[in-house]
Amino acid sequence: MDEFDVIEQYLTPLANTRGAFSLTDDAAVFTPRAGYEVVIAKDAIVEGVHFLSGTEPFDIARKLVRVNLSDIAAMGATPKYYLVSAALPKSVGKQWIQSFAAGLASEQKEFKISLLGGDTTSHYGSLVLSLTILGEAPKGKVIKRSGAKVGDSIYVSGTVGDAALGLKVVMKEIKLTDKTQESYLTGRYHLPEPRLKLGRALRDTANAGIDISDGLLGDLQHVCVCSRVGAVIQKESIPVSGASKQVIDKQKKYWSSILSGGDDYELLFTAAQKDEKKIQKISESIGLRITKIGEVTSDKTLKLVDAKGKTFSFSDLGYRHYIS
Amino acid sequence: MDEFDVIEQYLTPLANTRGAFSLTDDAAVFTPRAGYEVVIAKDAIVEGVHFLSGTEPFDIARKLVRVNLSDIAAMGATPKYYLVSAALPKSVGKQWIQSFAAGLASEQKEFKISLLGGDTTSHYGSLVLSLTILGEAPKGKVIKRSGAKVGDSIYVSGTVGDAALGLKVVMKEIKLTDKTQESYLTGRYHLPEPRLKLGRALRDTANAGIDISDGLLGDLQHVCVCSRVGAVIQKESIPVSGASKQVIDKQKKYWSSILSGGDDYELLFTAAQKDEKKIQKISESIGLRITKIGEVTSDKTLKLVDAKGKTFSFSDLGYRHYIS
Repeated sequence: MDEFDVIEQYLTPLANTRGAFSLTDDAAVFTPRAGYEVVIAKDAIVEGVHFLSGTEPFDIARKLVRVNLSDIAAMGATPKYYLVSAALPKSVGKQWIQSFAAGLASEQKEFKISLLGGDTTSHYGSLVLSLTILGEAPKGKVIKRSGAKVGDSIYVSGTVGDAALGLKVVMKEIKLTDKTQESYLTGRYHLPEPRLKLGRALRDTANAGIDISDGLLGDLQHVCVCSRVGAVIQKESIPVSGASKQVIDKQKKYWSSILSGGDDYELLFTAAQKDEKKIQKISESIGLRITKIGEVTSDKTLKLVDAKGKTFSFSDLGYRHYIS
Repeated sequence: MDEFDVIEQYLTPLANTRGAFSLTDDAAVFTPRAGYEVVIAKDAIVEGVHFLSGTEPFDIARKLVRVNLSDIAAMGATPKYYLVSAALPKSVGKQWIQSFAAGLASEQKEFKISLLGGDTTSHYGSLVLSLTILGEAPKGKVIKRSGAKVGDSIYVSGTVGDAALGLKVVMKEIKLTDKTQESYLTGRYHLPEPRLKLGRALRDTANAGIDISDGLLGDLQHVCVCSRVGAVIQKESIPVSGASKQVIDKQKKYWSSILSGGDDYELLFTAAQKDEKKIQKISESIGLRITKIGEVTSDKTLKLVDAKGKTFSFSDLGYRHYIS
């Protein structure tokens, strides 16, 4: 397989922006709009870590793009361009590349982004794919992890824990009688939904934000450490899907997947209490469930309160000691 | 090894620009200067392909940065920021990371660039490192592969073939009696010199440019295909170092390393014949040898002429048939 042939045949058609120079040059160029900042993130996905061996290249490509789009969403930015580096096992042939490129093409169309560049290397090793995503946001408007204020309400979008339970379904650790619910959970694992509309809608309202990739409690901890605040979460408020509820109602141990499972790529954010109605309006206008799950506190501890009013510290739950 | 500890301890100190948010956020931000374009490239280096297993992490980091800087140099741009994705074998420990970060730090200082972001993944596989480099150039001033004009002179910087012969020294295929010359060649393989000053100096003079990473003839072919022109090269004009000359004088077969060996990261560029004196002045002002090796032609063929006036087509030399 000749790298130049592969690029020309399958990847060049994706480079549909002038500054990509049809992928023929050493680098690409672009000019951000006046008054906008460039927002950039880079996340790799690795065979056996972020996806299972044997996953369809089409699906791998879509997940690769989406985990990166999720970072752009969390900042309240709009995605524009991306670059891909692929370290491919020697066994990868043209058919694989074709399916992978088709996956990229589907995401380009859905999210209005263009391929700017990258490279491929064939090696005696496993599949390692790295993507760099570029977006833009009005200057000074990005949502950071560090802006949470004492008294803020803490919100999450959608439902959490589905992707972690979905992986357990894929690994055959969990079985559900309802196959529709099973495929809902596996779908949440395979194909995350970057919350771009929500991120953009929150630019003027959220004080802090993050995408849930490490797990609800872990990512909340990131926000609290960066913002030098604490938090208290109501366990009963955490939004759980019907499928996930079936699982945890049968076996309580799977609550750990709800609290600490990663890969949901929902947004967790904080906003002033007075903005609750604004948040409701945003939720309605984009058709996405948004749930208040707790509050930002001043005492630099992280607490979870259950239905009976019992309080657990995050370190009880296996989290690292809070370092302020 | 905890990813967050590693990032905090070794990589955060490298993120010395405001918009990197000390590597604590989902993405980084930056604002290009008015009137400038962003220039972006992404190149991975892979264990067993671009560097040998067992190479010092300090040296791997430096090579990773430099192969990417070379792309920025070829465009005539100034580097500003970079992001790194590292897929690390499970065997990699803190000491490895420390040495790798020290390598990045040395390059940051030398080339005045800052770390903006990235990620690390631990996996059961080989070392795969991907870097994204961001630079800037005055709008419309980047040097592209596609600008070569019939009648242009073709130039290369420095000497070519050293890195390819250096690899053969490392692999013990070649031995030189003079150890200083041996280590000159291996040094050229291990630590390329991105020709950033030259690239910037050529902005208003070069019609087309590329960095020599695939080999002199291969990269000249890229320029010719993109520019829809041909070229004729004088073999005797090709600049060869004293060390490489020793090798090819003994064994003529190593001429193939001069003509087709990659990894030199010198610049190949074309400029109007009338600009020969300008090129000489640039060469003197930055203290870098620049040699005229041939001419751009209209007939869309690529030819090499030897000392006796004998002409070889590139396809005679094992290159793909020229497709116009």
